[in-house]
Amino acid sequence: MIQLRLGCTFDYEQPVAVPALLQVAVRRDDGAVVRDEAWDLRPAAELTVLSDPYGNTPRRVALPPGEAHIGYDALVEVPDRPDPMDPGAVQHPIEELPAEALHFLLASRYCESDDLAPAAFELFGKTAPGWPRAQAISDWVHNSVRFEHGSSDQATSAMDVYQRRRGVCRDFAHLFVALCRAMNMPARYVFGYLPDLFVPPAPDPMDFCAWAEVYLGGRWWTFDPRNNQRRVGRVVVGRGRDAVDVPMVTTWGPARLQSLRVWADEAADGP
Amino acid sequence: MIQLRLGCTFDYEQPVAVPALLQVAVRRDDGAVVRDEAWDLRPAAELTVLSDPYGNTPRRVALPPGEAHIGYDALVEVPDRPDPMDPGAVQHPIEELPAEALHFLLASRYCESDDLAPAAFELFGKTAPGWPRAQAISDWVHNSVRFEHGSSDQATSAMDVYQRRRGVCRDFAHLFVALCRAMNMPARYVFGYLPDLFVPPAPDPMDFCAWAEVYLGGRWWTFDPRNNQRRVGRVVVGRGRDAVDVPMVTTWGPARLQSLRVWADEAADGP
Amino acid sequence: MIQLRLGCTFDYEQPVAVPALLQVAVRRDDGAVVRDEAWDLRPAAELTVLSDPYGNTPRRVALPPGEAHIGYDALVEVPDRPDPMDPGAVQHPIEELPAEALHFLLASRYCESDDLAPAAFELFGKTAPGWPRAQAISDWVHNSVRFEHGSSDQATSAMDVYQRRRGVCRDFAHLFVALCRAMNMPARYVFGYLPDLFVPPAPDPMDFCAWAEVYLGGRWWTFDPRNNQRRVGRVVVGRGRDAVDVPMVTTWGPARLQSLRVWADEAADGP
Amino acid sequence: MIQLRLGCTFDYEQPVAVPALLQVAVRRDDGAVVRDEAWDLRPAAELTVLSDPYGNTPRRVALPPGEAHIGYDALVEVPDRPDPMDPGAVQHPIEELPAEALHFLLASRYCESDDLAPAAFELFGKTAPGWPRAQAISDWVHNSVRFEHGSSDQATSAMDVYQRRRGVCRDFAHLFVALCRAMNMPARYVFGYLPDLFVPPAPDPMDFCAWAEVYLGGRWWTFDPRNNQRRVGRVVVGRGRDAVDVPMVTTWGPARLQSLRVWADEAADGP
Repeated sequence: MIQLRLGCTFDYEQPVAVPALLQVAVRRDDGAVVRDEAWDLRPAAELTVLSDPYGNTPRRVALPPGEAHIGYDALVEVPDRPDPMDPGAVQHPIEELPAEALHFLLASRYCESDDLAPAAFELFGKTAPGWPRAQAISDWVHNSVRFEHGSSDQATSAMDVYQRRRGVCRDFAHLFVALCRAMNMPARYVFGYLPDLFVPPAPDPMDFCAWAEVYLGGRWWTFDPRNNQRRVGRVVVGRGRDAVDVPMVTTWGPARLQSLRVWADEAADGP
Repeated sequence: MIQLRLGCTFDYEQPVAVPALLQVAVRRDDGAVVRDEAWDLRPAAELTVLSDPYGNTPRRVALPPGEAHIGYDALVEVPDRPDPMDPGAVQHPIEELPAEALHFLLASRYCESDDLAPAAFELFGKTAPGWPRAQAISDWVHNSVRFEHGSSDQATSAMDVYQRRRGVCRDFAHLFVALCRAMNMPARYVFGYLPDLFVPPAPDPMDFCAWAEVYLGGRWWTFDPRNNQRRVGRVVVGRGRDAVDVPMVTTWGPARLQSLRVWADEAADGP
Repeated sequence: MIQLRLGCTFDYEQPVAVPALLQVAVRRDDGAVVRDEAWDLRPAAELTVLSDPYGNTPRRVALPPGEAHIGYDALVEVPDRPDPMDPGAVQHPIEELPAEALHFLLASRYCESDDLAPAAFELFGKTAPGWPRAQAISDWVHNSVRFEHGSSDQATSAMDVYQRRRGVCRDFAHLFVALCRAMNMPARYVFGYLPDLFVPPAPDPMDFCAWAEVYLGGRWWTFDPRNNQRRVGRVVVGRGRDAVDVPMVTTWGPARLQSLRVWADEAADGP
Repeated sequence: MIQLRLGCTFDYEQPVAVPALLQVAVRRDDGAVVRDEAWDLRPAAELTVLSDPYGNTPRRVALPPGEAHIGYDALVEVPDRPDPMDPGAVQHPIEELPAEALHFLLASRYCESDDLAPAAFELFGKTAPGWPRAQAISDWVHNSVRFEHGSSDQATSAMDVYQRRRGVCRDFAHLFVALCRAMNMPARYVFGYLPDLFVPPAPDPMDFCAWAEVYLGGRWWTFDPRNNQRRVGRVVVGRGRDAVDVPMVTTWGPARLQSLRVWADEAADGP
């Protein structure tokens, strides 16, 4: 196991109280084991744990008038192996997919798998079904889309990314998910922390990361079209059909984000 | 109580076996009580009951090569009162909405509440929050959109309807749902049977109907922007964020619909 | 030369006078020679000839309250050869294109060559530039899009057709034009009469037809992705960036089209 | 008259020769009189004057491999009065519009007047036709859209701006033009230099500016929804249906803009 220290801080400013939803804490149903977890809200505020149809547990909080600082910090243990893989994982025929997976064949707000289906068949119709097809889609998204900060926004969908060929990790994940669904492979959007373990450190300050999971051979597998690598140390925060379901922070009102910091590093004092 | 006989038949033709999902049976968690229910599949085929995150129970079936007939027929009791209403039902502030309702504030594939928000505020920003606002949206959709068979298709979204101002009941429901969400009222899409009770019979052959539910004053209320009436006898088949979640029939393959018939009438021999 | 009799009738009904633009008469600057031409407006009405930046000559007319019949009939001579072709026609580098052709590289309302550029490069980037590339695009559009009456409407753009893969001749032409422009080949939209000469008669009643022209090797060449054939007897009515510029009939007000008939046949009594 | 010195410089860098179109020189058919005009191309390159259907005169140039500096500088005389106005200018019925104006009722790539028509009628259907209506649209766009650098890009259309309510002057102009056309007022897109005469100096470095013209009372009138002011000293570079027709610089190839500077100031030594 590897021990990670991860978390984030947000600073907001608002003239009036603003209700908000936070989704930055580690999800409990995955490989990551939370050893310690703390919230730091200044001024103090109450966090209410909610739930959603996808097993996420967003926190509701009221940002008070003036300045608000939100901090989350956790000590987490993750497996010391890269994302598992199985190049022989098969693609299930529709009639054998479990209900839970079938749901993730549906088009969604940011993943227009319906509109992208003809393009998907042209691009991937001749690849071998199952793992090789999912990997071919990941390769193609990785190679065809240019990573560019600020090239997309909240409204950017998979179809937009297909047309413009640039975006951030969220956009890579959306396009990958939409193309997988178009090829009848259930795919879901994942959001979390991704430390730089066993890879050269990224030049940019750390941010949250988005990737995807595909249902093949009876289980869900991680694919990360942004990095297109099996990585060590992913920690899942939330999952859903697309980014609509996994808002890092949602505010209803005139709250202005002043600063954001994210970290995820190997803890100096391992277990 | 009123006793209804309702159901539908589909005839499909396909060169090869085609997996399909059916969502035409009465949902069990509402006012309607199912007295009797029968499926008629020719040739005989197995139906597998699935479930989804919204409590729907689609059936999976394999349509065999050649012709396939699917029939569903049920005897159902429904309350003899129109859809309940409460013009005093309040709009909850975001911070008081239960998690289950919050989910239905999110934008979805066919309900672009994000893109429609500025228009919604212009149109309804001065209406009284809560029931009057939901009713104002229903009135506006009812009066602004022209009902026209064939004027929309599977790809038509709320934004399309807002732009083109024509559609069928599904389109009325999508636009209504999107506008309610844009005004911070949780809204969901509903699909079912709607008999012509206590209203003049519709000139067209019966079809399934789509309407919506809005969360106000601590519960969900039916709104039907297509008819803009409180009606007697609605029977819910499915619910979801929008029509993506409630496909009447989905087929994966070259199945061609040859005929469709839907009925929902007062049963001659009431209880 | 072949002598054709061609024309059309429209019947409209309107409660009040409605201004309209007609664009159904033979354009004068092409191979077709007009021997005789007659308008039949009942009740009688004045036609004003207008012009546009593309050399089209729409007619303005006021449809009177009540019923209006518009008829156009012409006797026309066309070459007895199929659309010319030159498989060696070269693609001009941008820096050698004349200004008149450069204009038809621009994206337009229905031809989103900008959004379609990445897809175009994927599909046609390896084809030989010039005529073979234009022909490859025509082949691809012809084979990838299904002709289907009623599958598209006034709002349908090239991007929509790319996504849905069905449409009528206008849609085939839009997608072809957009893909050519995306590959830096100037392309324009053409609208006119297309008789069934030397081909089996079409099963459907005749309608107007849309095709395209591509600038290669110093001149414009006809391409018809709907039929994907060199044909005899095309008669041009209008040209433009896309269908926005060539409205068959535009009405500003509550005029309802009651019937439309179009004809284009070899004249029994040739010259 | 007021004498202005205006112009711009662009610095590009490219690995290979790249063809480009420049549209930054003063148009000759307006109030501005060019006293002196000079191009500065380093390395020296030939400029070819082209023309387009709207009377614009873009220059074609080949940017050489390596660095290219493009400079344009002009001494221009403009009237010392603000943009003319006539609050009594009437809206022409369609049947009286000249052909030249009718063309500018058509929807275009960035001005989806067709899709925006229902919203336009809701917003402006009760305003008095003619000048007051155009002014009401300008007021509304000015007040509803937030000016924000970087909030839009090349792909942003009037419908996008209507949905997102932020943009730069080009976006203000597109939305204004689309809404005017939707209300049957011919409108065109204008691009040029706008000095800070008789207004407080803008906080940002000068850039080109986009505004619009509306056809009322037999002539075209300037409207500037970004500033929503009658201004002194506008100098037109180009006009068209929308920004597609008036590209400041278009490059076909891997040219990277390194810097851009624009100026337009009262000349110290007036005539």
